[in-house]
Amino acid sequence: MDPRVTEHAETLVDWSARIERGDDVVLQVGEGAHDLAVAVAAVLGERGANLLATYDSAEIRRAYLRAHDGDFDSDPAFELALYERADSVLALGGSRNVAGTADVPGERRQAFSRAREAIREARLDTDWVKTVHPTRALAQRADMASAAYRDFVYGAVLRDWETLAAEMGRLKDVLDAGSEVRLLKEGDGTDLTMGIEGRTAINSAASVAYDSHNLPSGEVFTAPTGTEGTVHFDVPMTIRGRTVRDVTLEFDDGEVVDWAAAAGEAAIAEVLDTDDGARRLGELGVGMNRGIDRPTDSILFDEKMAGTVHLALGRAYADCLPEGEGGNRSAVHVDLITDMRAADTALLVDGEPIQRDGLFRWEDGFE
Amino acid sequence: MDPRVTEHAETLVDWSARIERGDDVVLQVGEGAHDLAVAVAAVLGERGANLLATYDSAEIRRAYLRAHDGDFDSDPAFELALYERADSVLALGGSRNVAGTADVPGERRQAFSRAREAIREARLDTDWVKTVHPTRALAQRADMASAAYRDFVYGAVLRDWETLAAEMGRLKDVLDAGSEVRLLKEGDGTDLTMGIEGRTAINSAASVAYDSHNLPSGEVFTAPTGTEGTVHFDVPMTIRGRTVRDVTLEFDDGEVVDWAAAAGEAAIAEVLDTDDGARRLGELGVGMNRGIDRPTDSILFDEKMAGTVHLALGRAYADCLPEGEGGNRSAVHVDLITDMRAADTALLVDGEPIQRDGLFRWEDGFE
Repeated sequence: MDPRVTEHAETLVDWSARIERGDDVVLQVGEGAHDLAVAVAAVLGERGANLLATYDSAEIRRAYLRAHDGDFDSDPAFELALYERADSVLALGGSRNVAGTADVPGERRQAFSRAREAIREARLDTDWVKTVHPTRALAQRADMASAAYRDFVYGAVLRDWETLAAEMGRLKDVLDAGSEVRLLKEGDGTDLTMGIEGRTAINSAASVAYDSHNLPSGEVFTAPTGTEGTVHFDVPMTIRGRTVRDVTLEFDDGEVVDWAAAAGEAAIAEVLDTDDGARRLGELGVGMNRGIDRPTDSILFDEKMAGTVHLALGRAYADCLPEGEGGNRSAVHVDLITDMRAADTALLVDGEPIQRDGLFRWEDGFE
Repeated sequence: MDPRVTEHAETLVDWSARIERGDDVVLQVGEGAHDLAVAVAAVLGERGANLLATYDSAEIRRAYLRAHDGDFDSDPAFELALYERADSVLALGGSRNVAGTADVPGERRQAFSRAREAIREARLDTDWVKTVHPTRALAQRADMASAAYRDFVYGAVLRDWETLAAEMGRLKDVLDAGSEVRLLKEGDGTDLTMGIEGRTAINSAASVAYDSHNLPSGEVFTAPTGTEGTVHFDVPMTIRGRTVRDVTLEFDDGEVVDWAAAAGEAAIAEVLDTDDGARRLGELGVGMNRGIDRPTDSILFDEKMAGTVHLALGRAYADCLPEGEGGNRSAVHVDLITDMRAADTALLVDGEPIQRDGLFRWEDGFE
């Protein structure tokens, strides 16, 4: 077995999930994630944790959902009990076909999701971590050869997380102390201003110890308000099964007042029409994982790409908000990404550049 | 997909487990049982049952058990809660390598098993059913080509269970009314007498409605006492990883007083030395599944083979015993099989032949 699979497992169990002896760990195994699951099981055994493996199969989900009449029971007691008592959930993604549930009607899927709110909450109340095993299907979606994609995934996952956490801490400190963020890209007309007064930035260092639940992670994010101006997103993405390209949003008083897209207009319109909160930003995130050097059509990786900034329409994370403030509410949270690695771009906090042309001031030396 | 996979799934859900709308069903998916799991998920969806799939992987179990120091937590709360609240457990066997845990030390395995008694009890308290998807590894163990093995498995599973249940009911009635069973095989010196007074025979018709938890099933069994005489077992088996062949047991006053084996003596000695109960019989079973026409080194199939009788050393099933009687107790329950399809063999109840040369009196017409 590729020794990086074991390193991945150790990073997941020790750095990300902080598993300790006696922890009750649900290991959610994707159809193509078997090898990673075996490596994780060995690490969990070594640590003396308790293990229950569930099987997260797109083909099983598809068969079940298509056959069901859609009148789902609310939060079945046996599954709720499992997650209510679990200490950690390690979700090992690893599709064998990313379109594996493409022919499940959207309504059926939503009805199933609505019926499982308490189960979802119980899972989110654990020390959960989501990661991914590099399968051929994921390599194909990334438009990469399988061996090259494996190198890419391990390059993103097997970082010196302590050092990156320290670097991200510098950006967090700047954002926590700041009142206003400005995003400038002369090349494409981006000039966007967001308020961050009183908000807390999350140093998302791929560990529950940092309130971070993705491996890889490597971003600092907060919840902006009162957005004004124009922003262009030049990183292509798949949103609701459709390719979205070159989205431009125009904000006034925090709300999208005009927008355009070179591709995927219908998907963006659908997102914006969800509810009032879907027209406001819930997240401003700065990607800082230098192992991620290209978009691979996977939000788990793309939004952490070093030299990019992402903004999410919809729901804000409660952890970023001052005590007692609700923040932006919405049924959606859809990220869009802009690449700052271009001439004449800048990220400014209270007028001071913290990043220029995709490099931070401590990298570039412009301070 | 082979249409027999769907028929297997329907038989499992409807005939065997009697799943109804709203039932909480744990689907335990063996490493090689994915296709059957997908078919079962579709049937569960159609019936409106709730589904949680667990992943039963020998490779995960091996990695976990080998890495653990052996000091296991007792009945981890999250897994216990799952099984305590489940209505049914459908265990889909389907190894990719039947020796997948061969290098896990026996002690480690036993310690793990001892630590999970309440979980095991909770599973047994559900409407559980165990079945098997025909994998290449299982075909190999049966010494059969894969396609021929699939035909064999579906021949055993896809029976007219109503009709077989009615036929098995005839044997049950004879056993329930009888006091003594005698097994005769002139060819190999078998002449064994067992008491069955007051015992209840189980009509194991592959359905929880018949207290039967195997698919395939097709046997009638009871709990004998006061065994006297000699019995020869000519069907080869694997017991504790060792091939066992031509075992002869001699009983006096219910207990093994002498024995021999042409192969696998150490395995038999190990079984007999487990405890006092291991030297007494816990089960007398009569195989009646005519889809099973040969041994395939799998007890799930072998003991149901039409024309065979099996006897188990060790633990008796409580369901066969009169109210308040404990029956034979032991940590083991090891089946041994003798083939009655030979000249001058007979199964007699209170002196009346119920089977001759492997054929029942209602088949043979000798009544």
